Amino acid sequence: MTERRFTNQQIDRLLRPKSVAVIGASDRKGALGATLLNNLVQYEFAGDIYPVNPKRDELLGLKVYHTVDELPEGIDCAVLAIPRPFVLDTVRELAARKCGAVVIYSAGFSEAGEEGMRDQLELGEIAAKHGMVIEGPNCLGCTNYVWRVPLTFVETNMMTPPKGTRAVGVASQSGALAAVLATALHPRGCYVSTSVSTGNEAASGVEDYVEWLIDDEDTHVIAMYVESLRRPKAFVAAARRARAAGKPIVMLHPGKSNKAQESAATHTGAMAGDYALMKAKLAREGVIFADTLEELADITEIALRCPALPGANMAVLGESGALRGLAFDIAEDIGLDLIDLNDDNSPALRAVLPDFVPVSNPTDITALGLSEPEIYTKVLTALLEDDRVGSVVASIIQSDPITSGIKFPHIIKVLEDGSFPKPLVFAGVDEGATVPEEYIEGLRKVGIPWFPSTERAYRAIARLADLAKRDLTDRSGEPITVPGIDTVAGVVPEYKSKELLRPLGIAFPQSKFAASADDAVGAAETIGYPVVMKAQAAALGHKSDAGGVILNLKSGDDVRAAFDRMYANVGAYDASIVLDGVLVEKMGRMGTEMIVGAKNDPEWGPVVLAGFGGVTAEILKDVKLFTPDMDQAAVHAGLLELKQAALLKGYRGSPALDVAALAGLIVQIGRVMAGNPSIREIDLNPVIIHPEGEGVVALDALMLVG
Amino acid sequence: MTERRFTNQQIDRLLRPKSVAVIGASDRKGALGATLLNNLVQYEFAGDIYPVNPKRDELLGLKVYHTVDELPEGIDCAVLAIPRPFVLDTVRELAARKCGAVVIYSAGFSEAGEEGMRDQLELGEIAAKHGMVIEGPNCLGCTNYVWRVPLTFVETNMMTPPKGTRAVGVASQSGALAAVLATALHPRGCYVSTSVSTGNEAASGVEDYVEWLIDDEDTHVIAMYVESLRRPKAFVAAARRARAAGKPIVMLHPGKSNKAQESAATHTGAMAGDYALMKAKLAREGVIFADTLEELADITEIALRCPALPGANMAVLGESGALRGLAFDIAEDIGLDLIDLNDDNSPALRAVLPDFVPVSNPTDITALGLSEPEIYTKVLTALLEDDRVGSVVASIIQSDPITSGIKFPHIIKVLEDGSFPKPLVFAGVDEGATVPEEYIEGLRKVGIPWFPSTERAYRAIARLADLAKRDLTDRSGEPITVPGIDTVAGVVPEYKSKELLRPLGIAFPQSKFAASADDAVGAAETIGYPVVMKAQAAALGHKSDAGGVILNLKSGDDVRAAFDRMYANVGAYDASIVLDGVLVEKMGRMGTEMIVGAKNDPEWGPVVLAGFGGVTAEILKDVKLFTPDMDQAAVHAGLLELKQAALLKGYRGSPALDVAALAGLIVQIGRVMAGNPSIREIDLNPVIIHPEGEGVVALDALMLVG
Repeated sequence: MTERRFTNQQIDRLLRPKSVAVIGASDRKGALGATLLNNLVQYEFAGDIYPVNPKRDELLGLKVYHTVDELPEGIDCAVLAIPRPFVLDTVRELAARKCGAVVIYSAGFSEAGEEGMRDQLELGEIAAKHGMVIEGPNCLGCTNYVWRVPLTFVETNMMTPPKGTRAVGVASQSGALAAVLATALHPRGCYVSTSVSTGNEAASGVEDYVEWLIDDEDTHVIAMYVESLRRPKAFVAAARRARAAGKPIVMLHPGKSNKAQESAATHTGAMAGDYALMKAKLAREGVIFADTLEELADITEIALRCPALPGANMAVLGESGALRGLAFDIAEDIGLDLIDLNDDNSPALRAVLPDFVPVSNPTDITALGLSEPEIYTKVLTALLEDDRVGSVVASIIQSDPITSGIKFPHIIKVLEDGSFPKPLVFAGVDEGATVPEEYIEGLRKVGIPWFPSTERAYRAIARLADLAKRDLTDRSGEPITVPGIDTVAGVVPEYKSKELLRPLGIAFPQSKFAASADDAVGAAETIGYPVVMKAQAAALGHKSDAGGVILNLKSGDDVRAAFDRMYANVGAYDASIVLDGVLVEKMGRMGTEMIVGAKNDPEWGPVVLAGFGGVTAEILKDVKLFTPDMDQAAVHAGLLELKQAALLKGYRGSPALDVAALAGLIVQIGRVMAGNPSIREIDLNPVIIHPEGEGVVALDALMLVG
Repeated sequence: MTERRFTNQQIDRLLRPKSVAVIGASDRKGALGATLLNNLVQYEFAGDIYPVNPKRDELLGLKVYHTVDELPEGIDCAVLAIPRPFVLDTVRELAARKCGAVVIYSAGFSEAGEEGMRDQLELGEIAAKHGMVIEGPNCLGCTNYVWRVPLTFVETNMMTPPKGTRAVGVASQSGALAAVLATALHPRGCYVSTSVSTGNEAASGVEDYVEWLIDDEDTHVIAMYVESLRRPKAFVAAARRARAAGKPIVMLHPGKSNKAQESAATHTGAMAGDYALMKAKLAREGVIFADTLEELADITEIALRCPALPGANMAVLGESGALRGLAFDIAEDIGLDLIDLNDDNSPALRAVLPDFVPVSNPTDITALGLSEPEIYTKVLTALLEDDRVGSVVASIIQSDPITSGIKFPHIIKVLEDGSFPKPLVFAGVDEGATVPEEYIEGLRKVGIPWFPSTERAYRAIARLADLAKRDLTDRSGEPITVPGIDTVAGVVPEYKSKELLRPLGIAFPQSKFAASADDAVGAAETIGYPVVMKAQAAALGHKSDAGGVILNLKSGDDVRAAFDRMYANVGAYDASIVLDGVLVEKMGRMGTEMIVGAKNDPEWGPVVLAGFGGVTAEILKDVKLFTPDMDQAAVHAGLLELKQAALLKGYRGSPALDVAALAGLIVQIGRVMAGNPSIREIDLNPVIIHPEGEGVVALDALMLVG
């Protein structure tokens, strides 16, 4: 496990300070140092406040210090509300006075060019040398709502969570989004424990604050906005710990559309992209990804308020047949599993519904609830008691205070009287309906989130249920060391790659390397005709383009002629390439072409990409990423989620293909990557997948080592 | 143009009645006849009210009639709040008394089995015979908010649109959703003119009411919920008229996930599906489709409130860099075009931004607006004045009343002082922020919709901008009559289909029909080797499965042997099939396989499906529907929206393909379908698309006629 950069005690000095210096304290309206000081005083910060301003003696009744040097030693935290040019010197002075933490609002560092970057690096060095926590630069500060510490110049609504209330910790690389998230959570009755905006992360980043939030007893769910995780390994370690602590991490991370990743070395590597890699890795650690700001708050509320996260298989109580069709459409669209409930398989539900209402999902209780509102309690309880159901949504027409008054109490009653290890979510159908606040609060009090629209409840539950469907246990196989891997470096050509990988049980067609025409004929005779001949040289990336692949050689003469032609072709293609020789290989059976590629990301570690081969894979991005901690069953299941998975299952009379063998190969490659950090990439392309029971064969192989 | 079933005057008797009879009037709390009567009295219905109840003499101060027979003749509308068994007789009596319209709430008709269906048909007959409008059965009634006529038992908020206000007409096949939509629109400050729920549509359906709403001067946008359009042609005619009248139709229609359409005769027909067909046809009429209830209200508000519908190319004013990445992700996800604005191409915008803010889209004005709020007015005006921009979103952090107070007035000012033929939409970033109602009303007053979240504004604009991108002009070519089409019927085998289609200029490989081995050899000699031979019989659907296709015949002996083998194969496959003979055909060049299929839907008329061939088309549904009113350019553009369009454009060194020729073929087939109503289906599969300038060739052809 990656070591933490900061202890909780160190971060406490920022987030639970007992003393705060305000460098640049002011009473000029709109000045950062004024709002900040105001925030501290207005919200009755319980510790000592040390305003610093060379030109003032008193502010808001507090003694003002003229210089940093005048400050007592060992102040927990200093907030710099001063112009950019003074920042670096001030931080040095603060370090000298053993200040524990610094908040830097000023922009103009790494985002502003070389000099800024240099200064930022120096901030990092000072922090490291003095064990100092630096929040920022270029941030909006932080607020501990529990300890009532508003170290921010943003107008802050200091909603302190009542004792025993579950609350959300926020760690955001954008100050604006940290503020926005608090603004969005508070009106939903969701409390924030502590919110940190990390800015440029000169010394401490979201990873560090998440570690602290995991140990913070006032934090129960962690909501994040991230643009780039600077220390992936540290974050993976934190995410793992958060999961163990039962504190879900919900993350909004733009970058899905970022196509600026075309520099990766090989074809498959280029397609994977860092964003996909990050997501694949963090999904394995149980991180829940939101796609939009709305979803971030929506998912967070369910995770915060409900007694447990949703399992797979959602059930819905609805009041109109029209909403059934809409539910099916949305469910298919977002990959949400609506469990199939019917009269035969659901006797408990059948028993509480009137005869004219068939059991179904969504169940349409019609307008019956208006005259017999007990039906809400009965049906919802029956759904929650059903072990097959992972979450329940009450999709309700609220209309007006009178109608709401009929329905809400009977829905609230469900959790007043019962308790179930799964969420019950109330989702309105008629957004904007006048619903008395007390009803919404009544729901929240018993642990039922109130959603203004049903679509949003479905989307948030879909994200959470997706987590429930995955087995996140670390099922890593034993790493495999490749004998002889230390004898190669750089691009390892096909014949050499196959030589190294074949002994590990990876299936290639029978082949023999040959450096002369005679050897090639000999090789072909040994292997048996027909054969294929492929030019071999580390410098030859795209054999086919260079005329370096000749198929279907049926005799010694064919082979001899091909040998000469191949050397001529490659020479004509690029005179600087010197061939090692050729690989003579048994012509393989045709079949569906897949690709399997792997890379060892310096930050994230090994990952294996697999999917359909050829242009389809590229155009449709019909590939998936697998991590080495997934076993064959998990990889198998993942492969069946490919867009063209129907081809694997046997389509229109063609046989089902050997997905198990492909999954086995992927797991094997994962173990190889885990066992040989020097292997940067492996590219098996194409891999032919044969009918079930007949295995997979990699026709080509390339490695990048060192 | 399809004739209307009802005149406006006939429908006026339902929606603008001067007299209303309440059959089953009551004062029993909760009774439908009580709420209805209450609604009429409470909202001061201006016409005459005739309560009918055999057991009462007076209700709410109104004289009560004991039977329908006692009623005066020629009452405009009677609402039946009576049990199901009495409905049919009562309707007969009302017809006899020349009542103009009837509303039937009761369920238990077509949805309840055979007897119900029979009774419903009878209702239809009565209506037709007497020129009577029947709303329902199984509906919630209707409300004319302008004339204050609440013919519904739903608690109704009678928000009458002030004179001159634009308002939404609602036509819904679900009563619940009609009610829900009004509940959702009213709090947004969007008025409803008239809302009709059509229920089982025994006599009049959404098509009829939409016709009325188009002519209703109080209606400006039409919002619909539809499960099944019973009279497609009538609706198409109405949609066309709505477009001409400048009244957008926004429709929510579940069914995307409906897979119950596998009965269509041919392969391509099965894939098209009725839902896709409906959408393709209505999109050509300018109907805007919402995917969710949220979207239905969101799109409706923009269409209602803004001075014009959004054009293509959205521009955004934002206040945080973090929101830029999120915007790009969402835009890619939903197919929204964010216009590229930069320092070089946008001098006007450059001039109003401070130096440190680069021109971009979304433009990130940072927190600058807090100190210089005029920047909102300047930047938004510059964006609105830019002819390249089709719509503008102000994506704003609202925070609290103080912050809102700084920003809103300067945004409102944009439309207070200026007017632009495109929408400006305000979209909050921090949903739930406390924004004083007056600011939101201030926006609305000048024509700026207020959206609680930016994502939702983007989604609604994307749907509307999609409309702007399409050329909806009817560009139908001259219909083409197929000479000899009257000589065939049923499944027309390949050789015959090609014989009929070839003279129209559709390219097939050179071929000759042969009924004997000698003829086949002769044909091959004429055509030149190599040839392919294909078994021909109307009953032989899948030639390949039956061994009825033999490729690469290189000599007369080959052909002779193949002829015998083919007859043997087909005989072994299905002894009942008698071959007409074989088709001897020139072996074509290989290439990318496409499919082109067409069908003449009895309701919707002709449509052509085209896309990638083989299993890919089926698995990935990588096909598009085209209507015969689209010209080659429009079809060409549509083909480039296929998922694998990259393959058409020339991928990785492979040449660009002749998309123009494929588009030409599709247009041609559309004209053939339009010219020959007897052709039910044409299936060209595969169609080989050659490199640009080299055309397309259909290798197989099948028709279904009659």
